[in-house]
Amino acid sequence: MTNRQWILVSTPAGALTSDHFVWRESPVPSPGPGEVLVRTRMLSLDPANRAWMNGPSYREQVLPGDVMHGFTLSEVVESNASGFAPGDLVDCMGGWQDFAALPAEALTRRDNRQDPAHLIGVLGVTGLTAYHGLFDIGRPREGEVVLVSAAAGAVGTIVGQIARLAGCRVVGVAGGPEKCAWLTGELGFDAAVDYKAPDFRKALRAATPDGVDIYFDNVGGTVLEAALWAMNQRGRIVCCGAVSGYDKRGEAYGSPLIPGILVTKRLRMEGFIVLDNAMANTEAEAQLAAWVAAGQLKAKMDIVEGLEGAPDGLIRLLAGGNKGKMAVRVA
Amino acid sequence: MTNRQWILVSTPAGALTSDHFVWRESPVPSPGPGEVLVRTRMLSLDPANRAWMNGPSYREQVLPGDVMHGFTLSEVVESNASGFAPGDLVDCMGGWQDFAALPAEALTRRDNRQDPAHLIGVLGVTGLTAYHGLFDIGRPREGEVVLVSAAAGAVGTIVGQIARLAGCRVVGVAGGPEKCAWLTGELGFDAAVDYKAPDFRKALRAATPDGVDIYFDNVGGTVLEAALWAMNQRGRIVCCGAVSGYDKRGEAYGSPLIPGILVTKRLRMEGFIVLDNAMANTEAEAQLAAWVAAGQLKAKMDIVEGLEGAPDGLIRLLAGGNKGKMAVRVA
Repeated sequence: MTNRQWILVSTPAGALTSDHFVWRESPVPSPGPGEVLVRTRMLSLDPANRAWMNGPSYREQVLPGDVMHGFTLSEVVESNASGFAPGDLVDCMGGWQDFAALPAEALTRRDNRQDPAHLIGVLGVTGLTAYHGLFDIGRPREGEVVLVSAAAGAVGTIVGQIARLAGCRVVGVAGGPEKCAWLTGELGFDAAVDYKAPDFRKALRAATPDGVDIYFDNVGGTVLEAALWAMNQRGRIVCCGAVSGYDKRGEAYGSPLIPGILVTKRLRMEGFIVLDNAMANTEAEAQLAAWVAAGQLKAKMDIVEGLEGAPDGLIRLLAGGNKGKMAVRVA
Repeated sequence: MTNRQWILVSTPAGALTSDHFVWRESPVPSPGPGEVLVRTRMLSLDPANRAWMNGPSYREQVLPGDVMHGFTLSEVVESNASGFAPGDLVDCMGGWQDFAALPAEALTRRDNRQDPAHLIGVLGVTGLTAYHGLFDIGRPREGEVVLVSAAAGAVGTIVGQIARLAGCRVVGVAGGPEKCAWLTGELGFDAAVDYKAPDFRKALRAATPDGVDIYFDNVGGTVLEAALWAMNQRGRIVCCGAVSGYDKRGEAYGSPLIPGILVTKRLRMEGFIVLDNAMANTEAEAQLAAWVAAGQLKAKMDIVEGLEGAPDGLIRLLAGGNKGKMAVRVA
């Protein structure tokens, strides 16, 4: 038995490529006292993974030489800690590898009866991000207009659907006509706008004749700027991510509308990190699970088969090549 | 009797100059049914006056040919409306002129026993802006660090003093060493930093060793960007104004730190317009009046004598040439 691993070998200055990673096979670690040996079942791929390479933020930087960091749904193989037994499913930062020996405090037990793909997606950090950001930061009221960017992505697909369940009109922003058609045809969005189209701003205006009350922002940059123009008075901008700046494909764009337009329209922009809200997650997870079980919320997945595909998967994610939640099935 | 008036003759494309105004003498208007004839006592000069020329915003644009718009403390001369009698002092949008005939609904009665300079300043829109922005949007807690820009200006001088009364450590940002010395020596700020100095960012870091919990932003631009770097987690940015962009002396600066840094630091940026909060103003005014009466809050004024000086006064204000609240004593 070996521990297959992807190592980050250098800090990308621009777009991430497969040359930034190297494959390594190491011995399976032995858990120390109080530690648990876990095996990765599903590895979450998230835009934030790329941001972690750029420097320390709300968490430590991923440095060259590190096993690439990542959220995982893992299975307990061997336990030196009370409360965990072989076969338990847990959330943890297992990283891009088969095995990790982690202290028990770094694990959160999950419900083995749920589909592992749901546990890493709609019932995991992704779903909680959508739920907490929309309801606690955005605070939608029935009949309001919700705009969401990266709408065909992991968080965006959930935000749009749960905003409709909350009685809002939902407009998605996504890249390309195919994704836009998928959002309205398959996921029930009221409208979708292609940010890559030359008439994006005009199309956004046409899709939001009553303006926008909540903008759930996953991207920042020029899409944020277009949303600022569309916002209604007392609108809320949920700052969830800024993927347009993570991969440094171009200069990050700063809008000169900020802060003046926040004053004149009385807007609130607020950032959050879902990991801060662990206490509220039980309720959110129960609600999300109920919607999924009732067929009211579709948990769309884009699954890469095998750990070997992790770098290409993340590169595709950053280029907007996914629909729904992207994850690697490792075991 | 004539009605002396300043007319805006063209929309400034760059910095405001005296050529944008022309002096006119018109007949004194007659109040119609339900109207009140008021005489301007004090005319408020505010950075927002310049922003109003750039286009419609939370209010109508000032257009070429208009008597220049402005908040005034005015005295009732003749009344065709019940509830107002000659001698009453009122707040209104009297504009840059001696007389205006206005509907009664456009007037708010003030307390004749107060100093007119206080009524237009610390007990007027200026003081309410500081109070509402700091307490309702910023929500300071004792021991927190409050940073305020345009700190030597009308709103900034009040924000700094009332934040100290609320138990905060207060750091001001102002232009030039003389204003900075005045903030610490005369107004009790804990520290002040000169944004025009070449080592501004370093000095700001030195003045805020424990970071910043609330940034009260009157300016936007590069000072906002420096504040973003200094913010602590869960900090609040009170978006009160963006004077760095109003006069279009250069390109308005948009920071590429937004929105990414709002996410990683979990920041809230929120804009407001004080006029929205008329209901809460009685309590705020009473508290401000009590602090002034007790000598705990200094109401610093920069008064221009005579309506003739209004354009030069506003030009000086936009160039940062004032200390404290700027107003024109008209009668």
